[in-house]
Amino acid sequence: MTKKLSVGIIGAGRIASVHVQSLAAIPEVHIAAIADIVLPSAQAYADQFGIAKVYDDYRKIIDDPAIDAVYIISSTDTHTEIMTAAAQAKKHIFCEKPIALDLKEIDTVLDVVKKSGVTLMVGFNRRYDAGNMELRKAVMDGSIGTPEMCIINSRDPAPPPMEYVKVSGGIFLDMMIHDFDLARYLLDDEPEEIFAQGACLIEPEIGKFGDYDTAMVTIRFKKGALCHIDNSRRAVYGYDQRAEVFGEKGKVYTANIHENNAVKVSVGGYSQPPIQNFFLERYLDAYRREAKWFVDCVTKGEKPLAGGLDGKVSVCMGYAAIKSAKEHRPVLLSEIC
Amino acid sequence: MTKKLSVGIIGAGRIASVHVQSLAAIPEVHIAAIADIVLPSAQAYADQFGIAKVYDDYRKIIDDPAIDAVYIISSTDTHTEIMTAAAQAKKHIFCEKPIALDLKEIDTVLDVVKKSGVTLMVGFNRRYDAGNMELRKAVMDGSIGTPEMCIINSRDPAPPPMEYVKVSGGIFLDMMIHDFDLARYLLDDEPEEIFAQGACLIEPEIGKFGDYDTAMVTIRFKKGALCHIDNSRRAVYGYDQRAEVFGEKGKVYTANIHENNAVKVSVGGYSQPPIQNFFLERYLDAYRREAKWFVDCVTKGEKPLAGGLDGKVSVCMGYAAIKSAKEHRPVLLSEIC
Amino acid sequence: MTKKLSVGIIGAGRIASVHVQSLAAIPEVHIAAIADIVLPSAQAYADQFGIAKVYDDYRKIIDDPAIDAVYIISSTDTHTEIMTAAAQAKKHIFCEKPIALDLKEIDTVLDVVKKSGVTLMVGFNRRYDAGNMELRKAVMDGSIGTPEMCIINSRDPAPPPMEYVKVSGGIFLDMMIHDFDLARYLLDDEPEEIFAQGACLIEPEIGKFGDYDTAMVTIRFKKGALCHIDNSRRAVYGYDQRAEVFGEKGKVYTANIHENNAVKVSVGGYSQPPIQNFFLERYLDAYRREAKWFVDCVTKGEKPLAGGLDGKVSVCMGYAAIKSAKEHRPVLLSEIC
Amino acid sequence: MTKKLSVGIIGAGRIASVHVQSLAAIPEVHIAAIADIVLPSAQAYADQFGIAKVYDDYRKIIDDPAIDAVYIISSTDTHTEIMTAAAQAKKHIFCEKPIALDLKEIDTVLDVVKKSGVTLMVGFNRRYDAGNMELRKAVMDGSIGTPEMCIINSRDPAPPPMEYVKVSGGIFLDMMIHDFDLARYLLDDEPEEIFAQGACLIEPEIGKFGDYDTAMVTIRFKKGALCHIDNSRRAVYGYDQRAEVFGEKGKVYTANIHENNAVKVSVGGYSQPPIQNFFLERYLDAYRREAKWFVDCVTKGEKPLAGGLDGKVSVCMGYAAIKSAKEHRPVLLSEIC
Repeated sequence: MTKKLSVGIIGAGRIASVHVQSLAAIPEVHIAAIADIVLPSAQAYADQFGIAKVYDDYRKIIDDPAIDAVYIISSTDTHTEIMTAAAQAKKHIFCEKPIALDLKEIDTVLDVVKKSGVTLMVGFNRRYDAGNMELRKAVMDGSIGTPEMCIINSRDPAPPPMEYVKVSGGIFLDMMIHDFDLARYLLDDEPEEIFAQGACLIEPEIGKFGDYDTAMVTIRFKKGALCHIDNSRRAVYGYDQRAEVFGEKGKVYTANIHENNAVKVSVGGYSQPPIQNFFLERYLDAYRREAKWFVDCVTKGEKPLAGGLDGKVSVCMGYAAIKSAKEHRPVLLSEIC
Repeated sequence: MTKKLSVGIIGAGRIASVHVQSLAAIPEVHIAAIADIVLPSAQAYADQFGIAKVYDDYRKIIDDPAIDAVYIISSTDTHTEIMTAAAQAKKHIFCEKPIALDLKEIDTVLDVVKKSGVTLMVGFNRRYDAGNMELRKAVMDGSIGTPEMCIINSRDPAPPPMEYVKVSGGIFLDMMIHDFDLARYLLDDEPEEIFAQGACLIEPEIGKFGDYDTAMVTIRFKKGALCHIDNSRRAVYGYDQRAEVFGEKGKVYTANIHENNAVKVSVGGYSQPPIQNFFLERYLDAYRREAKWFVDCVTKGEKPLAGGLDGKVSVCMGYAAIKSAKEHRPVLLSEIC
Repeated sequence: MTKKLSVGIIGAGRIASVHVQSLAAIPEVHIAAIADIVLPSAQAYADQFGIAKVYDDYRKIIDDPAIDAVYIISSTDTHTEIMTAAAQAKKHIFCEKPIALDLKEIDTVLDVVKKSGVTLMVGFNRRYDAGNMELRKAVMDGSIGTPEMCIINSRDPAPPPMEYVKVSGGIFLDMMIHDFDLARYLLDDEPEEIFAQGACLIEPEIGKFGDYDTAMVTIRFKKGALCHIDNSRRAVYGYDQRAEVFGEKGKVYTANIHENNAVKVSVGGYSQPPIQNFFLERYLDAYRREAKWFVDCVTKGEKPLAGGLDGKVSVCMGYAAIKSAKEHRPVLLSEIC
Repeated sequence: MTKKLSVGIIGAGRIASVHVQSLAAIPEVHIAAIADIVLPSAQAYADQFGIAKVYDDYRKIIDDPAIDAVYIISSTDTHTEIMTAAAQAKKHIFCEKPIALDLKEIDTVLDVVKKSGVTLMVGFNRRYDAGNMELRKAVMDGSIGTPEMCIINSRDPAPPPMEYVKVSGGIFLDMMIHDFDLARYLLDDEPEEIFAQGACLIEPEIGKFGDYDTAMVTIRFKKGALCHIDNSRRAVYGYDQRAEVFGEKGKVYTANIHENNAVKVSVGGYSQPPIQNFFLERYLDAYRREAKWFVDCVTKGEKPLAGGLDGKVSVCMGYAAIKSAKEHRPVLLSEIC
């Protein structure tokens, strides 16, 4: 067997679970180390997955010459510091979204990464979802002709805890950022202008922080297509994730995925089980494909589906949406970055 | 406007409703007369649809030289007598299924009809259903290659009244006869052998008459395809009507049709309304297409989708199934006719 | 039989076909007369449906004391004059949408109608669609809790002729007016503010008149719900008509209706036939239900699902959308009317 | 961490892949050893999954006192010998279906297992499929009332190699055995009589061995329900796996699972990707659940969904079907065992 790719995990929170699992299942990968400022969190993963080295300081991973690549899945405010260190140590980088919430900081780190020549992949997992990839393919191969509209419906099953909401950056930077990125990916185009409407209909506490729990956005893209995105923090029936691209020759869309494929029929009609409720369950295959893709980027010269620029533009779109909702007018992306 | 086709209706029972409605909506048709031994039944239709002549004796229609064609939708035991009279009077004939329950009687009347040269169309309405026509088309144009299996699931919403069951001829001649005909139509082939299993699981009264309320049949067709048909007298969720043809290059099938296209989604999952419950509702379009087809047969030389031979073979299949269920063995069609 | 409702038809264009057919199928209705300034158009309907009186002047119908109600389905610019005359002659009124394009004119005629005491029903046929009625029911009975979002996707199969586009009032007043009305019906709420984006991506000629062929609108309703509507003048795959209402307890939505219920399966996957392509086909049942509803309004005191106010507000929404698209900002309904 | 369950794998063929993967993903399991008479096959799995001990003789596993349980997934003709040895060594047993093709041999080994007191689980993986479990649940909780019919459509994407067919035992013992078991599971009932029709429509070579590539079976169960099963060795559109249970209060059924959730729409209609094509892909979750279930049986006293009796009865049903197809008559299970 050829040498395995040696990976260090930085960050051992909830999201680490899916990334570590996905990496562990790839025969070409060796998870060499895991670090978290909360050592017991890192230790728990190490125990379960047989990871030999456990640290409370990510620098131990950066300094380990045997490690080829790092998974930066720590809290957002630590990303750019760690990315900078990793790039300088010539380690390939997988970084969870968003890269950072400060645009200047993003520019600076992307510059460092570029100069270092390492691979950077940003964790927009939905680009690796089989359905979304099929939509992208239909757009790229001309099946639907020139895209004219894109409709994304994206709703969480339940609002996150208020402590999370307070530091999240708000619905546009925390939640809709995924949909902003997906729209760019599906349309293969750049946004020009955004109009955003926000409302607080579910949890009044959210409104107290100037945030929204319900939002609709209209985006005009450079090649002319219009895009609608809606978000809700509470879809009681599950994790509602649908996208549609409409063009001159037809359309392509994704349907939700039910918990199982059984249908019950009675006097009252037909019933299907709820859709998959949790993002880890819904996008498990996407996370697995993403991890494999990252490995292929490093080892086989594959290109990331989402790189540094994608990480930046999605944040710009979030700020444009926030500005639009506050100022109650369409905002040009050129006003932001 | 060219001369309209003048039609006389013979029989004013429940099924007359759909036929009269369908004919009334065809601009090229004039419903000239309606007859029923129960005059008030005929009168009611005459009032509603503005039919000028109302009789209690079908012979008045046969004797009317201005009438071009007759709809024989009276009780089964009167069919052959009326068909014979109509054929001799050179009137084109639409006859409800079954032609008769006696095979010799069928042979005799088909002979008379043939000699008279009039058009005979037998009321196998399902052949005119848009979904079934699409299946037939896919078989005939080679889309699925040589057919290898046919699966028909056909279930009534509720058992008929016991008085009806007693005189119906039993589940195979009364209900499955439609599916026998559909199987021949979809496979474009003739049956060679039938094995039937009957059970009485719903209404013990039905069993007392030696009849069944639940039945499964396996048919081997001449070109080799196997066919399954199941019938139930009670599907509490509606009128379950599905067919599938499977072949070397794929398959085609029909889905049930829901009462409306709304879907409700809640914590408990997804729910769709029941399927269409009543045969007149489910096959309304098929009845309309059938009536128009009959008119086109008479006026434009179109061919009936179901003619005299189809009327006969379906009855033979019913007898073969009855014999199989009683004798508990596969029965060759050649044992019957 | 009790006395039939005597109806006069005013206007014999294409849309008359569905209305006359629907009325003709109602036993309680007698179509007494039809008028059109193009007499042969009126005559053609009269011949086909056996209508005794044919005029080139609608006043003959207004002056006929035996006529109880009128169907005003002539060109939009004639509606208010005819409505006024009909109301003064105490005839019940069915009027196609829009009542008029001038808001003052609408106010004036609604005033006349109100004083006359006759029934006025405005032809928003989609309110009578079984799926939409099911959605409305789910909202009204609390099944989905307080509505938070409404998503309407509404796309025509092909652009109308340019001569039609020029006089249509534009995509917002001609096409999206149906969706504006549907949103109010489904949400049981009034709009407060509209933001509209229009684009001309399909037919450059349309853009030359300052009109759009692709449009997206975000509406904020008074009770707080957000609503998205998208329109396209060209969906090559058929007449795409879907609506969704999302609320605190779940959601309800309608699916498109396919041409038939057959599914073909081959090596390449599963394929279903296109969706119903023409609005008369897609909403045939809705038009029939609408006609019956109108009769019930006049004869049994039923309430129209869409009355004069609905006719007015939908036009206001169209003007608000036009203003928003031109001025590139959200527009309050209170700026319009 | 508590002591892990130490498992030995016996057999390293294609099916081993899914079992080893599934076991490897269970934290409570330690795969201690793998054996295969073809040592390199065993070695390959050992390399990929880090299994320490690799043997060409299964007895090394039986003799290892540190091993708690064995997975017997070697060729069918070796099952009973290995089961006997494992039971005598007090090792818990997972055995792939069928236990054996000789009924007397099955009785003997089941007796040994019973006396030894070890857990025996037979690999009917479909019992662990989420959809089938939902169907079973609906039957057991009375949702559909007393079952009256069961319909199983089960078709392989392509015929196996001829060398496999020759030694497989034929379509009824090799392929339909899964469906026989599923019918018993779904109906919670025992078969009384089987009628089988076989045909050779796909691959004439198969017919030369007296085997079939297309088959339909009707089973009468003891409580009265009728069951239809159809099998084909070639469904070009994928691995077609559907089941339906119909009863007095409604029905439950499973739908096929598509490769992804994207739908493409063009002038020609709607198209969905093919269904999952390979049994390992289609039943991957079921295999994983099965492996976890086995671990829970051994460590927590859970009951296998399929045990020794299920392993035996399914083979009896296979012989009854073979006899029925050959003798062209319904065969009682009591004629077989």
